[in-house]
Amino acid sequence: MDLPVDLDARGDRTSAIYRALLDAIRSGRLGVGDRLPPSRSLARDLAVARNTVATAYERLVAEGFLEARVGDGTYVAELAAPAPAPRHPGALDPRPGWTFRPLPVSGETEPPPYDFRVGIPDASLFPFDTWRRLVAAELRGGAHHPGTYAHPAGHPQLRGAIARYLSLGRGVAAEPDDVLVTHGTQQALDLIARVLIEPGDVVAVEDPGYPFARELFASYGARVVPVPVDGDGLVVDAVPDRARLVFTTPSHQFPTGPPLSLARRQALLEFANRHRVAVVEDDYDSEFRFTERPMETLHALDRHGRVVYVGTFSKSLIPALRSGYLVAPRSLRDALLGARQLADGYGAPAEQVALARFVADGMLGRHLRRALRAYAERRELVLDGIARLLPQLEVVPSAAGLHVAALFTTPVDDAAVAATALEHGIAVEALSSYAVSAPVSGLVFGYGATATQAVTPGLERLARLLGTGPATRPPRGRR
Amino acid sequence: MDLPVDLDARGDRTSAIYRALLDAIRSGRLGVGDRLPPSRSLARDLAVARNTVATAYERLVAEGFLEARVGDGTYVAELAAPAPAPRHPGALDPRPGWTFRPLPVSGETEPPPYDFRVGIPDASLFPFDTWRRLVAAELRGGAHHPGTYAHPAGHPQLRGAIARYLSLGRGVAAEPDDVLVTHGTQQALDLIARVLIEPGDVVAVEDPGYPFARELFASYGARVVPVPVDGDGLVVDAVPDRARLVFTTPSHQFPTGPPLSLARRQALLEFANRHRVAVVEDDYDSEFRFTERPMETLHALDRHGRVVYVGTFSKSLIPALRSGYLVAPRSLRDALLGARQLADGYGAPAEQVALARFVADGMLGRHLRRALRAYAERRELVLDGIARLLPQLEVVPSAAGLHVAALFTTPVDDAAVAATALEHGIAVEALSSYAVSAPVSGLVFGYGATATQAVTPGLERLARLLGTGPATRPPRGRR
Repeated sequence: MDLPVDLDARGDRTSAIYRALLDAIRSGRLGVGDRLPPSRSLARDLAVARNTVATAYERLVAEGFLEARVGDGTYVAELAAPAPAPRHPGALDPRPGWTFRPLPVSGETEPPPYDFRVGIPDASLFPFDTWRRLVAAELRGGAHHPGTYAHPAGHPQLRGAIARYLSLGRGVAAEPDDVLVTHGTQQALDLIARVLIEPGDVVAVEDPGYPFARELFASYGARVVPVPVDGDGLVVDAVPDRARLVFTTPSHQFPTGPPLSLARRQALLEFANRHRVAVVEDDYDSEFRFTERPMETLHALDRHGRVVYVGTFSKSLIPALRSGYLVAPRSLRDALLGARQLADGYGAPAEQVALARFVADGMLGRHLRRALRAYAERRELVLDGIARLLPQLEVVPSAAGLHVAALFTTPVDDAAVAATALEHGIAVEALSSYAVSAPVSGLVFGYGATATQAVTPGLERLARLLGTGPATRPPRGRR
Repeated sequence: MDLPVDLDARGDRTSAIYRALLDAIRSGRLGVGDRLPPSRSLARDLAVARNTVATAYERLVAEGFLEARVGDGTYVAELAAPAPAPRHPGALDPRPGWTFRPLPVSGETEPPPYDFRVGIPDASLFPFDTWRRLVAAELRGGAHHPGTYAHPAGHPQLRGAIARYLSLGRGVAAEPDDVLVTHGTQQALDLIARVLIEPGDVVAVEDPGYPFARELFASYGARVVPVPVDGDGLVVDAVPDRARLVFTTPSHQFPTGPPLSLARRQALLEFANRHRVAVVEDDYDSEFRFTERPMETLHALDRHGRVVYVGTFSKSLIPALRSGYLVAPRSLRDALLGARQLADGYGAPAEQVALARFVADGMLGRHLRRALRAYAERRELVLDGIARLLPQLEVVPSAAGLHVAALFTTPVDDAAVAATALEHGIAVEALSSYAVSAPVSGLVFGYGATATQAVTPGLERLARLLGTGPATRPPRGRR
C-alpha cells in the first residue's frame, strides 16, 4: 500500500500513521471495503514496530473507520456517507416574537411556459463572458489582501463607481464615502432597520407593498402601519405623525407601478422634516424608464438629510451578483458601518472590484441600453395584449420597471385567478398577495423573465382561461 | 459628429436626441469643453426639424449638461465630476439603543514588519489559480439560474459538501438540509441571534471573548453576561441559570486558547438541557490542530438538540471567500431560513458551487495539510521564542488554531505594551482588549499573517523592548 506517512511530524508515530490512514480514507484513496495490509507488513514497510501500526488500526476500528473481521483482516468500514443526523427535531424554539416563515423563492421552481413572475430580470441579456473575465482578473493571488478583513462599506473603487453612476444617472449627490455596498436591497434595508428601529417604533409602509421590507421591519419589533397608495403613489396624508420611518418606492410604486408625484414627494419630505421621520427610498428598478425624463429622486430633493437612498444591481444586472447599495446621511454613517460589521463583516473584494470596473468602464450603461430595448418591446406587448384581450383588467399607468399591474374593473378573487393560471402554465401574480389591508384585486405582469415571443401567446391563453380571449382555433373542416 | 440616435425608439424625436447626447456625455464620448455642432447642421444630419434638435439642446442646457455661450456655440459643461454631496451632516440619528461603533479592520492598515495579528490566515498558501479556475467554470451564462432568487440555505451542492466535511472531519452529524451556508461566522451568529434573542434575554459569553459576538448579541437587546474562563475553557458553573443562550468556543477558547474540557462539555450540555438554554458552538479555527486527536464537538455530544454549530472558511481558507456555515437543530430550520431571507436573501450560487467542488474534490484537505505544516512551524517558533526570550510571559496551553495567548506572570498594562510594540513595528494584541471584566494581562500572538522567518526576529525585538531580550549586538572593538 502506498501510504505517505510523515514520521517526522509532530506527535508520536502511532498518531502519524493514524492520520495518514484517516486521510487516505477521507480522500477516497482507501475506499469502503478495501482491505488493509496486515499490521506486520505495513510496519515493515514503514520501519516501525508492529505495535505502532496495530495501535493506529485499533483506534480507527474503535472510531468506526475500520472494521476488524476475525480470522480475516482489517477493512475500511462503511463511512463514505455522512454520519446520520440525529432523528430528534431538536429542543430549541425560535423566540416568541419570531413569526416570519420563509417564502418560496423564484429559483426553486421550474419556470412555467408563460412566465410573468415579478422582479426577475432576463439573465440571458447579461454579458457573462465579460463578467467572468473581470472576476478572474481580480482573483489573483496578491490582490485585495484576501487574508485580512476588509472595510464594511465595500471596496473604495466600487463605492466611487456607484457614486458617479448615481450622480449622473439618478441625480443622487453622493461621494464615495456616502455609499455603502450591500448584498442587495434586502441587506441595505436590514442595516437601516438595525440602526433606526427600536422595538415599538412605528414604521409606515406602502399597501400594497414589498413583503420582505414589511416583514423585516416587523422582525425588529416595529409596529408596521400599512398606508394606502393611489395613482400618485404613497398617500402621504395617511402616514401616521408618530412614524419613525417611512418606506417608499417613489420611481415605480411596488407593485402597483405609478411614480410618486412631485407634489407628494415634496409633501413627504416636508412631513419627514416636520416630524423627524426617516424616509427610505427604494429605487429598485428605476433604470428601466419608458418615458423621456424620470422625476427627481427624493434623495435629490431632500434638503435636510432625512432620506436614505437604496438601490440594487439585482434588476439592472442580475440577482446572482448579490450587490446593492445605500446612500445615507453622514449622521448615520458610523452606525451603518458598525451594523454591517455585526451583520456579516463585509463583501467579497475581488467581485466588488470587478463590478466597479463593469460600472465605471461603461459596460453597465451598454447593458442597460440593450436591456431597455428588450424590456420596452415586451412591455408594449403586455400593454397591448391586456388592452386587446383582457377587457376586465385596467392597467395602472406607470413609466418604469420590469412589471405592470392591472386592476380588475369588477373585483374578483385575484389569488384564485393566479392559481388557476399557474395550473395552465401561466405564472402571473395576484395584486392582493402584496396587500396587508388594501382592498385590491388585480394581476401583476412581470416581463423580465419571459421570452419576448411568449408574451402574446401567454396573454391569449390567460384570456381564454378567463373567457375573454380570442376563440380557440376552429375545428378542421369549418371555415 | 457621430451621434447614434435611435429615432425609431419609443418617445418623441427630441427625447431620442436628448438621450443620445446624454449618453455621449456620460460615456465620455463627448468630453467637458467639447463644442456641439450647430443645431441646424445636426438636424440636417439626422433629417429632423431644427427645432427638434434645439429643444433637446435647451433641455440639456437647463439641466446643466450643456453650456450655451452667446454668440459662440454650445459646449459640454463641467459635469464630469460627481455632483457635490450635501454639506450638512444629515438629520437622522441612530436609535437610542444603538451604541456599537465600527471597529478597525485588519485590511485597513499596512501590515507591520512583525505581524502577530490575530485571526488572519496566510493567503499566500491559498491556491488562487485553482480557485479562479473553479469560479470561472461556474460563471457560465446558463448556469445556476442567475436571474432568479436562490434558496436561502445555499446551493445544495455546497450544503452536501459541508455536511460530509463536518461529518468526517469534526464528527458533526449533519445532513445537507441541516446546513445553512452563510457569509462567515458573523452572519451565522447574526441569524441565530435574530431568531433566538428577545430584548432583555440573558446571553452568556466567554470573558475574555470574541467582541463581535458580544456586540452583536447586545445589539439585539440582549443582557450580555460575561462568564470567566480558565485552563479548561468556559467556567460552566458561572453561567447564569436564566441564560437564554451561551456562546462558547470549545475547541480553542477565543482568545486564551485552551479547549473546553470534556467534563465541562458534559456539564454545559446537561446545564443547557436542564435550563432550556441554547448553546452556540463557534468552531472557528479548529481545522488547525497540533495534537493527535481533537475532542468531540459539543454538537456531537449533544443528545437533545440544544447546540447550534458554527464554522467558517475564513481561517481554513481565506476571509475573502466570505463563507461559513451553521448546523442547527431542525426545530430552528424554518426560522433560520426566514432570517436569512430577511437579512440578505441568499449567497452567490456560482461561488458556492465552486467552493463545493473545492471541498468535495479534496482541494480543501490538501490545502489544510499544507497550511497545517506551515502554521505548526510558526507555532513552534512562537512557543520557543516566548520560552527563551520573554520570561515575564507564561503561555496558556492550547492545541489548535492560529494564535497563542500568554499571560504576564506579574500583571502589567498589556494595552500599553501592545501600543509600544506597534510603534516599533510589532503588531501583537493585548489580552485585556478582549475582556469585559476579567482581570487579565497578557499578549496574544497570531501566526497566520507573519512570515515564518519573521517570527523569531519579531520576538527578539519585542524582548529587547521589554528589557528581557538578547543583548543588542556589542559595539565594534569589544569581544
